[in-house]
Amino acid sequence: MGRVTSRHRVVRLGGDAPPVPRIDTLVAEEPLDIRLGGRTVTVTMRTPGDDFDLVAGFLAAEGVVGAAEDLAAMRYCAGTDDEGRNTYNVVDAALAPHVPAPDPGLMRGVWTSSACGICGSTGIDGLRRMSRFDVRADEVRVDAEVLYALPDRLRAAQKVFASTGGLHAAGLFTAAGEMVCVREDVGRHNAVDKVVGWALREGRLPLAGHVLMVSGRASFELTQKAAMAGVPVMAAVSAPSGLAVDLAADAGVTLVGFLRGRSANVYSLPDRITVSEPATTA
Amino acid sequence: MGRVTSRHRVVRLGGDAPPVPRIDTLVAEEPLDIRLGGRTVTVTMRTPGDDFDLVAGFLAAEGVVGAAEDLAAMRYCAGTDDEGRNTYNVVDAALAPHVPAPDPGLMRGVWTSSACGICGSTGIDGLRRMSRFDVRADEVRVDAEVLYALPDRLRAAQKVFASTGGLHAAGLFTAAGEMVCVREDVGRHNAVDKVVGWALREGRLPLAGHVLMVSGRASFELTQKAAMAGVPVMAAVSAPSGLAVDLAADAGVTLVGFLRGRSANVYSLPDRITVSEPATTA
Repeated sequence: MGRVTSRHRVVRLGGDAPPVPRIDTLVAEEPLDIRLGGRTVTVTMRTPGDDFDLVAGFLAAEGVVGAAEDLAAMRYCAGTDDEGRNTYNVVDAALAPHVPAPDPGLMRGVWTSSACGICGSTGIDGLRRMSRFDVRADEVRVDAEVLYALPDRLRAAQKVFASTGGLHAAGLFTAAGEMVCVREDVGRHNAVDKVVGWALREGRLPLAGHVLMVSGRASFELTQKAAMAGVPVMAAVSAPSGLAVDLAADAGVTLVGFLRGRSANVYSLPDRITVSEPATTA
Repeated sequence: MGRVTSRHRVVRLGGDAPPVPRIDTLVAEEPLDIRLGGRTVTVTMRTPGDDFDLVAGFLAAEGVVGAAEDLAAMRYCAGTDDEGRNTYNVVDAALAPHVPAPDPGLMRGVWTSSACGICGSTGIDGLRRMSRFDVRADEVRVDAEVLYALPDRLRAAQKVFASTGGLHAAGLFTAAGEMVCVREDVGRHNAVDKVVGWALREGRLPLAGHVLMVSGRASFELTQKAAMAGVPVMAAVSAPSGLAVDLAADAGVTLVGFLRGRSANVYSLPDRITVSEPATTA
């Protein structure tokens, strides 16, 4: 299997000092060919590792599977590199007999295209997948102080980031702020897929009562992945897009952005976030 | 046409103050269905605007076109939303008669898949597109002090980021550090495509002697887009992946990462970056 990091020669430039050659550790990025019944569904550039989780999470986000028993099998294909070693860059998944065949658009590799309707839609109706879980009904409450602590906990758990500085992360937390699962990847979508796929394979879907924290922005696609996994609260360090907020409001996800220090913006369903009265008031 | 930003209600949480409702400006994110001869090639989530540049740049990155005259026409399809307005979310491009038909894999929407070879390749050979431009032969020299100034210039030109905090950016600069073109997008690939597509349509490809600066990390795909446009120097604020460095070295692109303050790492072809001797030495 490909390694998570690799070492490279680099010339370090700094201020008025002369250039210094040194060795730098970089995060690995390799293609993963995701197949369903032998046919390629998509190829994603990812950091090797947790590949079965990535495939399971991707298929959950696409609405193809919703529970561990929906996947009959996953295996690495026997692809080899120039030296005859398995590349571990192709995973073939087989659906259980009871699982309906996926949308033909997914198998054509243009997942959003078939959903866009005739000649495009500005709205979310044509793009979004309908979650099999009722996220809106989730009555979880998360204290703002719990939210404020999440970015540091996520960062502290990013082992590969610490050595390479080049990774996105997604972390699953309980409503009390306990870390359940953290994954890193060069692709932020992959990091979320790896977390959701892990949860699916562990029999933990839907992720009711949980908070999904992502290291970057909150895009439409990440918000959709949260909704498809039944996550009631998604928090991002940076900004959401307008479409992500529209989707979150529609799907019943509480979307938190700009979660930095002891501040945050809540863009949808804010009642799930509780703020304690300060102990002393003026 | 969709707007670049939209306004949303938000609840602001901050320290010990009570939650405050306010209106926040968010960046827009809408699907763009990119078609070639009427058939969907891909659907990308993008910030509306400069759509023809985005399409041209995407097709250049895929190796389909290399000059303005390779594109016979581009037009918005007549897609309408619920209220009968054109969504401007579908662009159909027509190739000039002299342009060879694109790879069937591209038209199947699984652009990387057909290139991955049989059951995958760890290396870059199967993934990469061969640039029609000889980037390695570019004898440009860029002073380190010019590089150090680029992040601030890029950030200063990010008009939408200033109001939303949610955008990636790509900027094209001369070797002397003059800004030529800057584009912002929710997707970092799109920002680069918009810059390259602008240059293609302006008859400026190959981008010999130029520096492409990106606001985030340097992935394999961004590095490939630079090489396909003939850019000799690509600089990123954050880390590159190992595969991006391998590709840059192979394609003849000088890859600069961690460009922050007056420091940077040069990962490939460092001879293009010149460092002036300090005026005074100890």
